[in-house]
Amino acid sequence: MILKLVVAYDGTDFRGWAKQSGLRTVEGVLGEALARPLGTMPVLRVAGRTDAGVHARGQVVSLEVPDALDPEVLRDAANGILSPEVVAVSIARAPEGFHARHSATAREYRYRIDLGPNPDPFTARFVWHRPGSYELPAMRRAAQDLLGEHDFASFGRRPQEPGAPTVRRLERLTVARRGDRLEVSARANAYLHQMVRSLVGTLVAVGEGRLDPVSMPDVLAARDRSRAGHVAPPHGLTLERVVYGR
Amino acid sequence: MILKLVVAYDGTDFRGWAKQSGLRTVEGVLGEALARPLGTMPVLRVAGRTDAGVHARGQVVSLEVPDALDPEVLRDAANGILSPEVVAVSIARAPEGFHARHSATAREYRYRIDLGPNPDPFTARFVWHRPGSYELPAMRRAAQDLLGEHDFASFGRRPQEPGAPTVRRLERLTVARRGDRLEVSARANAYLHQMVRSLVGTLVAVGEGRLDPVSMPDVLAARDRSRAGHVAPPHGLTLERVVYGR
Repeated sequence: MILKLVVAYDGTDFRGWAKQSGLRTVEGVLGEALARPLGTMPVLRVAGRTDAGVHARGQVVSLEVPDALDPEVLRDAANGILSPEVVAVSIARAPEGFHARHSATAREYRYRIDLGPNPDPFTARFVWHRPGSYELPAMRRAAQDLLGEHDFASFGRRPQEPGAPTVRRLERLTVARRGDRLEVSARANAYLHQMVRSLVGTLVAVGEGRLDPVSMPDVLAARDRSRAGHVAPPHGLTLERVVYGR
Repeated sequence: MILKLVVAYDGTDFRGWAKQSGLRTVEGVLGEALARPLGTMPVLRVAGRTDAGVHARGQVVSLEVPDALDPEVLRDAANGILSPEVVAVSIARAPEGFHARHSATAREYRYRIDLGPNPDPFTARFVWHRPGSYELPAMRRAAQDLLGEHDFASFGRRPQEPGAPTVRRLERLTVARRGDRLEVSARANAYLHQMVRSLVGTLVAVGEGRLDPVSMPDVLAARDRSRAGHVAPPHGLTLERVVYGR
């Protein structure tokens, strides 16, 4: 049977999701923890291959296991091995053919920025400390122009294979302020590599007055990475939720 | 002149406050950061010598510096050197004779417990994960009997010097529940070593039904460490605030 596993992690001390020999990655640590009760190293399919330093609250992983296995027992065994840096939150039998990445219809990310004068040691691992004042209406105007289906080549790291598709459907891009906290929330069917962090860096440049809020259609049309803002640092970013169906 | 410095830190990766040669401590790291702009290693007086793994949001430090020095410049220089693990939150000239420890009239601590089924990677450094159900009225009853001036020998690690005073005035001990979070707040003029964690361990034992809620007067009278609950782990504890005057 196929299992759907929801995983949360503090990505600070990992070299990202994807297994790499000799490096500490979330896939590596989780795979090893599951291998002990399973007796064999499972093949893990993942909804979002997060980069080094990026966190997840609702990452989704699918894996194939023997039908006789009790999913809850597997989860508890894995949590007994995993540190609280990585937690298997929930586990359930998935429908036939379920694939964490291919079956996903949308991914929701949130990027947190701390505008306060001092960094906060209690949130510093999960929030980008960038004090200053931001023009929220300008940021929202720019965000509005980025919504919808576009070629996001200006917002992605050059694809490894030339000619790989760069069109994505951005369904939500909001900017909220709560006290000294600025939160950018994104939802898209899928993303180019570093796309959320490029969108955030671009909105920050708009909010700080370094980029024209009405320039987004031109930036998109240019298909040129240098026209967008800088890539925001990874530690402010969290994969919040993966959507299936609808 | 004497400066009053408020410091916040994530104590996870420190061997406590007090400087120890060869070990990474908050006093050591902060002293070195201040020494660079000062040109000399300052003597730091501290309100609460937190143990290894204990955090602080409002720790207070006093130090003597040349009158010509601009306190804000010193703070910003120190923050430029310190990682966000330790942050100099505020700095100000203190009245003549101010001493972070001797002048303090009360210290406020908070202990956080996570009752949810899974640990949360985003708060795990600052919260004790101990799922279960707790009898809050019993915990509050026990807390009530601990308030006031008592000999707290049953709640402190054996004092290094035999005959050292073990009477303290506990001004507040409350238990609050917010969702899956249980918070124990304490305020006292001063504490014995590990006293807050012993109080918390005792209240947890009462809440779990392992200790009689009306037994606190007997536990106090016994002056015997083995009569109280176990010492709760350090990572749930934060020094929130130090009070001067009143």
